[in-house]
Amino acid sequence: MSHKVTFDVVGDPDIINFGIGQPSADLLPVDLMRTAADGFLEKASPQDLNYGERQGDPLFRSALAGFLSSEYRAPISADALFVTAGNSQALDFVCSVFTRPGDTVIVEEPSYFLAFRIFEDHGLNIVPVPLDENGMSIEALENVLTRTKPALLYTIPSFQNPCGRSMSTECRQRLAELSRAHDFIVAADEVYQMLWYGSPPPPALGTLADQGNILSLGSFSKILAPGLRLGWIQTAPPLMERLLGSGVINSGGSFNQFTSLVMREALEQGLQAAFVEQLRETYARRVEVMDESLQAHFGDRARWHKPRGGYFFWLEFDEGIDTTALRASADRFQTGFQPGQNSSSRGALKNCLRLSFANYGEDDIREGVARLARLFEHSGTL
Amino acid sequence: MSHKVTFDVVGDPDIINFGIGQPSADLLPVDLMRTAADGFLEKASPQDLNYGERQGDPLFRSALAGFLSSEYRAPISADALFVTAGNSQALDFVCSVFTRPGDTVIVEEPSYFLAFRIFEDHGLNIVPVPLDENGMSIEALENVLTRTKPALLYTIPSFQNPCGRSMSTECRQRLAELSRAHDFIVAADEVYQMLWYGSPPPPALGTLADQGNILSLGSFSKILAPGLRLGWIQTAPPLMERLLGSGVINSGGSFNQFTSLVMREALEQGLQAAFVEQLRETYARRVEVMDESLQAHFGDRARWHKPRGGYFFWLEFDEGIDTTALRASADRFQTGFQPGQNSSSRGALKNCLRLSFANYGEDDIREGVARLARLFEHSGTL
Repeated sequence: MSHKVTFDVVGDPDIINFGIGQPSADLLPVDLMRTAADGFLEKASPQDLNYGERQGDPLFRSALAGFLSSEYRAPISADALFVTAGNSQALDFVCSVFTRPGDTVIVEEPSYFLAFRIFEDHGLNIVPVPLDENGMSIEALENVLTRTKPALLYTIPSFQNPCGRSMSTECRQRLAELSRAHDFIVAADEVYQMLWYGSPPPPALGTLADQGNILSLGSFSKILAPGLRLGWIQTAPPLMERLLGSGVINSGGSFNQFTSLVMREALEQGLQAAFVEQLRETYARRVEVMDESLQAHFGDRARWHKPRGGYFFWLEFDEGIDTTALRASADRFQTGFQPGQNSSSRGALKNCLRLSFANYGEDDIREGVARLARLFEHSGTL
Repeated sequence: MSHKVTFDVVGDPDIINFGIGQPSADLLPVDLMRTAADGFLEKASPQDLNYGERQGDPLFRSALAGFLSSEYRAPISADALFVTAGNSQALDFVCSVFTRPGDTVIVEEPSYFLAFRIFEDHGLNIVPVPLDENGMSIEALENVLTRTKPALLYTIPSFQNPCGRSMSTECRQRLAELSRAHDFIVAADEVYQMLWYGSPPPPALGTLADQGNILSLGSFSKILAPGLRLGWIQTAPPLMERLLGSGVINSGGSFNQFTSLVMREALEQGLQAAFVEQLRETYARRVEVMDESLQAHFGDRARWHKPRGGYFFWLEFDEGIDTTALRASADRFQTGFQPGQNSSSRGALKNCLRLSFANYGEDDIREGVARLARLFEHSGTL
């Protein structure tokens, strides 16, 4: 099947659209960026504006390594970091370097719906593996690996998009082992790793980079600002060599040099660390409000786990419900969501939906869930 | 053959290395960038930090369209512009969207050597077409097209890298026609279009975007700062649709949103237009100095045309000279250049070399050419 779904963007201000997986305006830090840009440009040397080293500016990578070591509670070295232009670019780049058309990529079912399009652009065959309570089912994966030889496996280990589940420490280790045993690359999308509300998830898959063929993809989009288009891949030497051999960075140098030097300042001044703490507090409150609102309006007709991190609630309805059909009428109720079907690589999960609490404050979340309930109440007459 | 050559970077300060195709430090405008960043961040709204529209920020594209219309002396519309993360990323992206492994790309012989690696990463067959006095020989191209069906043709129409030649207006029109008749995409690398020293080159190939399957790739790397990693593709609706359909921008939004908003300010304040004028004056003087120095030291043993724009002199020696072999001894004479062989997709042109005047001031150019002459004088004894 073809995945020609586009993402929901901020549009009609009268609609509360939980389909939008982007931060709300009050969480986009213009002042912080001004301080960081001022700090960089006050002391910048002309050569800072030249092509950057292929792997990324060494001082930026040092600052990032310090931040990650603190957030991950594990030592991350600057040598293990490769600077990208955000996670979408990184995933596309990983496909370019490590796959050829006709190769197989294993994905979680459900998964991040816009990743499917990137895989299709690279001519990859998408093979889904279901989730269990611990994220991707390792048992199901081992079963798939008996008959499939993937080039790549794409996983969102912590606070999975859309389900919100996290892979256990044991499963992470087993996945690392399997990547070596079956010779495939793991592209771990770890953008939600720092967004925990309560206690941290199991260690980032990146901390196991020495134990498997692991590329840990991180980004500033979810912890600072999506428009920066800046991220990183954390990995070990053999895979790093493959990344550094790519023609595009040998021609253009580091993928986003200027922005990385601005962000170096935000990291060194501690602005990024303070901001991610603030995000955790804000999103934690939103989770509580959305959960309470859902209990009030959907307690008797949907099932969900309150997420412990990330951006999303994932609701499961009885099999008869078709959320793709309902989505078409959502505008009339000034509400919105992502139909579960979008997140399925095989067009299933029509009885599920994804709600993001990232783009709205607490009052809007209450109001939006109430509108969503009205949509469902009228669904028989639509 | 495999093209595993890497680019020369600023290294030992005692060496004058004309192999480096990067601007000198005095041409990297920290003050300008500070003014532009201040201007943007003073008035930025939070949503400016969110994902950008896939095609690129509309106000940035408007400002860029105004600048290009003025520089190209032809109306360029904001709708015809697609924002990229620099020309290397753009060329890689074009290959992703318009080619599949096994396809053929036609290149000029010689051409930009680091483009070859990008084409190889995409599994493309590289077919060279020689240059004549008017750039890519249209006669030779028509001959190749009788037996080859390319997906892509890569050309540097103005002040070609490495030869410095420019395609005539007639040849540009004929190329546009051929792209329609033979159904291939032209990726025109127009990064040197504005760097003319004397009189402008024929109109950018982008101005013919309505007459052929043309993607005109432009960048701020050569007219402002390479580290920005910001550029654009100018094209007409049918090809624009193909660009916009790519999975990676449907996931991540515009390729370099933050930097594009900084550059919007530089365009609107006229800083970019003033800077490119200053570059033209500076480089024009360097061309004169390098030409005079070459006349003094190489007048009797090499042939070249004084470039009317761009970054490069291309020197041709008698067939017996092997510049690849000489390059290995260049450090001893504290000089450097790109051997012609690097610029040949078939490993030919050993008797040629490329010199860039972008990375050195006038005194260094005089001294560097004198050192180069000493290298050649000692070549018999090396």
